[in-house]
Amino acid sequence: MIALGIDPGTATCGFGVVELADGRLRLVDAGVVRTDATRTDPDRLRDLHDALAELLSEHRPQRVGVERLFFQRNVQTAMVVGQARGVALLVAAQAGLAVDEPTPNEVKQAVCGNGAADKQQVATMVARLLAVSLDGVPDDATDALAVAIGCAYRAQAEPRLATAR
Amino acid sequence: MIALGIDPGTATCGFGVVELADGRLRLVDAGVVRTDATRTDPDRLRDLHDALAELLSEHRPQRVGVERLFFQRNVQTAMVVGQARGVALLVAAQAGLAVDEPTPNEVKQAVCGNGAADKQQVATMVARLLAVSLDGVPDDATDALAVAIGCAYRAQAEPRLATAR
Repeated sequence: MIALGIDPGTATCGFGVVELADGRLRLVDAGVVRTDATRTDPDRLRDLHDALAELLSEHRPQRVGVERLFFQRNVQTAMVVGQARGVALLVAAQAGLAVDEPTPNEVKQAVCGNGAADKQQVATMVARLLAVSLDGVPDDATDALAVAIGCAYRAQAEPRLATAR
Repeated sequence: MIALGIDPGTATCGFGVVELADGRLRLVDAGVVRTDATRTDPDRLRDLHDALAELLSEHRPQRVGVERLFFQRNVQTAMVVGQARGVALLVAAQAGLAVDEPTPNEVKQAVCGNGAADKQQVATMVARLLAVSLDGVPDDATDALAVAIGCAYRAQAEPRLATAR
């Protein structure tokens, strides 16, 4: 199964695409969508919308994860990040896809087995699980890959959990 | 000119449409978009997107106003309102429309001549300027009408301001 993880933002939005097959993870794509600071917010949100829609159409994930963010410094920042988050959730809904909205702790728990892991541990584990080097990969893309991995694991676990019940 | 004002929210999103012609304001439409609380956030944002896109296509405003909100109680609320706000800005950008993002003070200043006016004064002035009764109209719709009125006035003033310069 293919999962797309998104670390939402208007100026810089991280994305990561992974495939989980036969218990093995594979890196499919990762990067950041950057929008033009000289354009208006509505235009930047449209550019973000179109870029994310193109990613969905290119990789056809079965599952999308959009991190739930709590640690914004202030309400104004939260509002601006919320705008990008709303566009990301919308794009997934428009594609008819199920969306996971994990908390940062859930993402850390999924890739490190520890909800209190720091950024470096997360990056180390993402690189290890995907068996790639993430040197030079932007932090937002690494974060998005962590979300995608958690999302893929969760999708894999669900049928088993359902059976266990 | 026709202006659409939006008071963004995911559960309840107010909208108001006014026409300003020959210095006179006219109420075109007002109400709220409510989304189904039993659906997921992504689905609710899609429903909101589609409802707002339909309003644009029905009324063909030249201008859209989306209130800038600062007074959220906490960051989590700001994030959720931001999601709806992002979708509203996106819809306007997708229609190729200019978007005003007035602050609450600017809206109050526009309809009451006083940036510190209270909710009741705003409602009274909106009803007076449109020469209609707003009895039974939801607060969010009245707020959106105030945004639309400010937006229409501003569009009208712009060519003159440009000339004056």
